[in-house]
Amino acid sequence: MKARVNVMLKTGVLDPQGEAVRHALGSLGFAGVESVRQGKVIELDLAETDRAAAQAAVTEMCEKLLANTVIESYSVELV
Amino acid sequence: MKARVNVMLKTGVLDPQGEAVRHALGSLGFAGVESVRQGKVIELDLAETDRAAAQAAVTEMCEKLLANTVIESYSVELV
Repeated sequence: MKARVNVMLKTGVLDPQGEAVRHALGSLGFAGVESVRQGKVIELDLAETDRAAAQAAVTEMCEKLLANTVIESYSVELV
Repeated sequence: MKARVNVMLKTGVLDPQGEAVRHALGSLGFAGVESVRQGKVIELDLAETDRAAAQAAVTEMCEKLLANTVIESYSVELV
């Protein structure tokens, strides 16, 4: 089973990487880009075949390693 | 209009970051993680309100800045 995890900085947390992308887009002539937030996407290939067990395992992985829950939020999607 | 861009390394391109995550998950006791690929997600807030124009603009941003199309593939999603 495949899982996709999206990790984004929480709203209100400064995102210098996204801000740099916004500036760069402006310099390249792309007008009308109001804000940019950059995050991570992690695709996992799991041996687990049970959806509920996979969801629980991936959520635990996020809490322990994949996301810094102080400043980041995550979402898990099974595909 | 909001757009979400997913940038992943193309299949076959070595992903040391993903590999490091896989090892770390193994060390933490998560068995059955067969492979991990890590990519970027970029959320853009656009002034553009026309879907087709927004899609075209974001695709051009990907080609010019957001993705290195030699080794990365991208997908654009309007939300």
